[in-house]
Amino acid sequence: MSKNMMSMPDMAMMDMSVMQACMDACSACEQACTVCSTQMMDCAPACMNCADMCNTMMRSMMRMQGMTPASMMSMLDACIAMCQTCMDMCMMHADDSDVCRMCAQSCKACMDACMAMKDMMMASA
Amino acid sequence: MSKNMMSMPDMAMMDMSVMQACMDACSACEQACTVCSTQMMDCAPACMNCADMCNTMMRSMMRMQGMTPASMMSMLDACIAMCQTCMDMCMMHADDSDVCRMCAQSCKACMDACMAMKDMMMASA
Amino acid sequence: MSKNMMSMPDMAMMDMSVMQACMDACSACEQACTVCSTQMMDCAPACMNCADMCNTMMRSMMRMQGMTPASMMSMLDACIAMCQTCMDMCMMHADDSDVCRMCAQSCKACMDACMAMKDMMMASA
Amino acid sequence: MSKNMMSMPDMAMMDMSVMQACMDACSACEQACTVCSTQMMDCAPACMNCADMCNTMMRSMMRMQGMTPASMMSMLDACIAMCQTCMDMCMMHADDSDVCRMCAQSCKACMDACMAMKDMMMASA
Repeated sequence: MSKNMMSMPDMAMMDMSVMQACMDACSACEQACTVCSTQMMDCAPACMNCADMCNTMMRSMMRMQGMTPASMMSMLDACIAMCQTCMDMCMMHADDSDVCRMCAQSCKACMDACMAMKDMMMASA
Repeated sequence: MSKNMMSMPDMAMMDMSVMQACMDACSACEQACTVCSTQMMDCAPACMNCADMCNTMMRSMMRMQGMTPASMMSMLDACIAMCQTCMDMCMMHADDSDVCRMCAQSCKACMDACMAMKDMMMASA
Repeated sequence: MSKNMMSMPDMAMMDMSVMQACMDACSACEQACTVCSTQMMDCAPACMNCADMCNTMMRSMMRMQGMTPASMMSMLDACIAMCQTCMDMCMMHADDSDVCRMCAQSCKACMDACMAMKDMMMASA
Repeated sequence: MSKNMMSMPDMAMMDMSVMQACMDACSACEQACTVCSTQMMDCAPACMNCADMCNTMMRSMMRMQGMTPASMMSMLDACIAMCQTCMDMCMMHADDSDVCRMCAQSCKACMDACMAMKDMMMASA
């Protein structure tokens, strides 16, 4: 059996409010990115990528039975990296577009929530 | 500007056949995982997570304008880790279910294609 | 040009609070269905179908520039029909599972919100 | 019990090659639309909506246990309407963009495959 198959941190040990906050931040970021992508600015492909990654991240937290610590950590890293990319691109237009500025803020909030989720998982491992 | 904003490897330098093979493997894996998840075996949540991750991965390769090397590498790692988790779970039922065995094979093929994509990106960086 | 290409009802004529409520109901239903699908009860395939349809519905309302009245009405009908199917299946387990009962309630709320959206579009056509 | 809960046409009565062709056409259309949306032309929001609808349609055919004839027919109608909208928008650029012309062709093929699926379901009802 793969070493990845060690069980997830005991749910009873995990702070569910941290995970709920992360799911909410992913959902909000998916929505902000979807709206931002319709502006047809050069951030649009990053926004679409970020919307899809955030939706996948949110759903995976709702299906923890199908995650391992390794796949969870790796997916959180990918979500953080994708939000960083999208935020950087939207920040270039933040002075010109309220939608881009709000999208960048949602990306930042999602990154922070994913980092808190990683911290919590490491603390309860 | 974030250090993530360095540009993607010059598309002209990248081997497009490697990227096309990776997109095809992601698409095939999404489909195999979606079918496998309907069996209501204990691999189902992992299959659903893997289907979503593979779709997000495939779409991101079709929207490379919205990726950076950092976010691309991180997403490839997440896809590899998720395929590993799903493959491990499905392999437990491989003797009992042809669908699980085929799902595990699709996960393995997708992992290999993502690793080839990482190698190609590093070589052309 | 196809007759489908007549323009969407003038946004200025539409009640944006109705559309916002519909997007919120779709998002809530996607989440309830995703959670419900992890129970591995016989409603799970319907829940997964409903989660995907609700996400597609929500995103399409965020990208109205890419909709016509015909495609919008048709997609609302599909979302209503999918929520009906999921609700019917989950109601069979409503006495045994709080998760199924909440999922059925989210489906009902999403159906109602989609119907209100249809009414609003017809009134502003 | 809702009238929607009558069972799906007996799978043994259905022509699986028609359904497989429809799933393949949905997958091809999702990919063509995703690529087309990155061009940042005014068809992009329609392409994104169509990509999401086609993916939802494909997955639902892979999870027929969670469909009824009513929800299946309604979702096929929505997919046809969305492909029509996307095709109409992309055809406006067909002379200028090979990507738009290929996207429109994929939409047409997907519409035809969904119509064949409807015919087959009605014949086997």
